[in-house]
Amino acid sequence: MDSATTTAPLIAPPGLAGVIVADTTIGDVRGAEGFFHYRQYDATRLARERSFEEVWHLLVRGTLPDAQELAAWQERTARAATVPADVAAALVTVMRAVAADDPLVTLRTSLSAYGSLVGDKPLWDSDETTKEAAAISSAAVVPWLVATAHALAQGREPRLPRPELGHVGNYLWLITGVEPAPEHVAALSRYLILTIDHGFNNSTFTARTVASTGADLTACLVAGIGSLSGPLHGGAPSRALDALDEIGSADRAARWARDQLASGNRVMGFGHAVYRGTDPRSELLKQTAIDLGGPTAELAVRVEDEVVAVLAEAKPDRVLRANVEYYAGVVMQACGIPRELFTPTFACSRVVGWTAHVLEQSRDRKIIRPLSRYAGPQVDRAGSPV
Amino acid sequence: MDSATTTAPLIAPPGLAGVIVADTTIGDVRGAEGFFHYRQYDATRLARERSFEEVWHLLVRGTLPDAQELAAWQERTARAATVPADVAAALVTVMRAVAADDPLVTLRTSLSAYGSLVGDKPLWDSDETTKEAAAISSAAVVPWLVATAHALAQGREPRLPRPELGHVGNYLWLITGVEPAPEHVAALSRYLILTIDHGFNNSTFTARTVASTGADLTACLVAGIGSLSGPLHGGAPSRALDALDEIGSADRAARWARDQLASGNRVMGFGHAVYRGTDPRSELLKQTAIDLGGPTAELAVRVEDEVVAVLAEAKPDRVLRANVEYYAGVVMQACGIPRELFTPTFACSRVVGWTAHVLEQSRDRKIIRPLSRYAGPQVDRAGSPV
Repeated sequence: MDSATTTAPLIAPPGLAGVIVADTTIGDVRGAEGFFHYRQYDATRLARERSFEEVWHLLVRGTLPDAQELAAWQERTARAATVPADVAAALVTVMRAVAADDPLVTLRTSLSAYGSLVGDKPLWDSDETTKEAAAISSAAVVPWLVATAHALAQGREPRLPRPELGHVGNYLWLITGVEPAPEHVAALSRYLILTIDHGFNNSTFTARTVASTGADLTACLVAGIGSLSGPLHGGAPSRALDALDEIGSADRAARWARDQLASGNRVMGFGHAVYRGTDPRSELLKQTAIDLGGPTAELAVRVEDEVVAVLAEAKPDRVLRANVEYYAGVVMQACGIPRELFTPTFACSRVVGWTAHVLEQSRDRKIIRPLSRYAGPQVDRAGSPV
Repeated sequence: MDSATTTAPLIAPPGLAGVIVADTTIGDVRGAEGFFHYRQYDATRLARERSFEEVWHLLVRGTLPDAQELAAWQERTARAATVPADVAAALVTVMRAVAADDPLVTLRTSLSAYGSLVGDKPLWDSDETTKEAAAISSAAVVPWLVATAHALAQGREPRLPRPELGHVGNYLWLITGVEPAPEHVAALSRYLILTIDHGFNNSTFTARTVASTGADLTACLVAGIGSLSGPLHGGAPSRALDALDEIGSADRAARWARDQLASGNRVMGFGHAVYRGTDPRSELLKQTAIDLGGPTAELAVRVEDEVVAVLAEAKPDRVLRANVEYYAGVVMQACGIPRELFTPTFACSRVVGWTAHVLEQSRDRKIIRPLSRYAGPQVDRAGSPV
C-alpha cells in the first residue's frame, strides 16, 4: 500500500462518490431541495435576472457588481475578448495545422497554445492580481477560440469579434454571423449562467487537482476541457437532441423509452447523480425553450411527459426527470448554435467556474495526492509470491 | 452540501492524503519498507537489469516480454517513434507558432495537437486493441516532441529520429546530436525506468480522473503533463541542481542547509511524502551518478552527507534523506541533458505509467466525481441568511 503512515488509510467508495474532498465558498448544490446557488445567490434567479458578465464578476470577485463595477468589468472582459492580432494569427495557424473536426479537441490545443502565447506563469509565481487577470482573459477568449475553430473546420474565414454585443451576444455573432436577436441572447445567457458551476463535477475537480501542483492556469483549464470532452461528462446535450430526432413524434416516445430500457441503455437526458427529483436548471431551460417556441420545443415537452411516465413505471423507486442536458440542446438549437458546438458552448460557461475554482485552490498550498491500493498478486522484496 | 443521498458523506483529509481512491494492479509503493514494484517486479531491479522497452511492455501488457515478444515490441515502438512526415510537419508548424521557451508547455500543446492529427478517439468508443495502439504511439512520440520543441526553441533544425538506437538511445541522440555512449544510455534508462510509475501521484491521478469520463487518451495525457508542470510535482530535479550550483563546494553545504531551514524554505531534493527513510530510487541513482563520475557527482555526494547531518540535527523526529530528484538531476546532466529538459525528460517516462493507468481506468465505467462542502455564508432558497 502506497503509504508509510502508521494510521490506517481511508478507503473511499468507487469514483469518490459521497466523499467531500475540499471546502469551497464558490457555490453549493443542495440536491435534495432541487436548489443550487453561487456565493449565496440562487443560480436560477441569477439566470433569470442577471447578465452573464454580472455572474462572471460574482464568481471571480466574490460579489455582484454595482453599476460602476459592472461597467468596468464589461469594459475589461470585452477588451479581453479581442485577441491581439499577432496572437490571433498564431492561434489560427495552430488550428489550421491540427485541422480537427471536433471543436472541443481543437479548443484543448488552441487554449493550451493561447497560454503559451500570452506567457501564462505558474500560479505559485503569481500574485492575486496577476492570477485574476489570467482568469479573466482565459475565460474571455474561449468563445472566440470555439467560433474560430468552427469557422476553419467549415472552411470559411473566422469572423472578427464584436465585443460591444456583450459576452453572449458576441459569441452568437461569431457563430451565426447575424445580429443576434435579444431573445436569443437572453435564452443563451440563461443556459450559460446555469452551467457556470455545479459542485465538484469531474472537470472542476480535475482543474483543481492540477491547480494544487501550482501549475499555470492554462494547464488547469486544458485539463478541464479534456475532462469535459468525455462522453460521461460534457457530451449529453447533443445526444439528447439526437434522441429527439430518432423519436420523431411524441406518439413514438413511450415505445422508444421502453426499447432503451429493454436494451439496457441509459435514457439520455433523464436523471441526475445529484438531483433525485427536479433539476432546477432543467425547469428554467424548459420554460426558456417553450418561450422561444418552435416544433422541437413542442416535441421535447411532449416526449418528456411520455418518457417520464415510462421511467416511473419501470423504476418506481427512483424519480427520473429531464435533466439539464435535455432542454439545453433545445435552447441552443433555437438560438442558432449547431449541434457539434453544444459541448464547446458548455465549455464557454464552465470555464468561468473552473477559473474561480483554480483561484480558490491556488490559495491552498497542499497538493492533492491520494493513495491507490495494490490489487495484484502479492510479492516480497525478492519478487517471490507471498 | 453537494449530495442528495441520505447517508452522511465522508470527509476526506486535505489533499486526499491517506485516502485510497482506487485499486490498481500496476504497481505498489511500500514506503515503510523503502520498496516499490511494477506488477510484482522490484522496480530498482528492473532498472538495473532490464531495458526501458521491456519495462514498458510490462506496464502496458502486464508481463515481461519473452525474446520474441520483445523483438516485436521493439519493432513496434521504434516504428511509432518516427512520426509520419505530414504529421511531423504539422506539429513543427504548431510548435513554431507557439514559440514557447518552456518545453513542457510546448509538449502540452503539441501532444494535444498530435492526438488531433492521428484522430485519437474517446476511450469508450475504442476496443482494447485500439486503446493499446494509442497508448504505445502516444508514449513513443513524447521524446520526439520534447526534442523537437527544444531544437526549435534553440533556433536549430530538429533532428530526425534514429529509432534503431532504442527508445532511450534515440532520445539522447535527438537531444545531443551525438552517438550516445552506452553508459549514458544505461544510466538514463535507469532513471527513466525508476520514474515510470509511483502510486497515485498527482499527474497519474489527474490522468485517471479524466479517463473516468471516457475522454480520449490524449486528453488524459495532456492533463497529466499540465499536472507535471506544477512546481510541487515535476519541478524538483533542476532546482536540486540549482541548489548544488548555489552551494558550490561541500564545505558550504551545512551553512546553506541551516540558512534554508532558518528562512523556512523546503530543502530541495530531500525528504519524500511516502518514503520516511531511504528512497530506493535515490539509492540507485546515487550509485549511477558515482559510476558516471565527474565533479558534480562528487559534490552531490559530499553535500548530501552534510545536509542530511544538518536535517537530522534540526528535525530529529524525521528521517530526511536525499530523494529521487536529488540524484536525478546529476545523472541527467552527466548524460548530456540540459537542465531545462529535466522535467520534460521525466514526462518521457511517466507518460508510460499514465498510459497504463488510463487503460486500467477505462475498464471501469464509473466517473470520478467527489463532493465539495460549501463553506461560505449560509442562505435559504430566497437568498436570505439562515
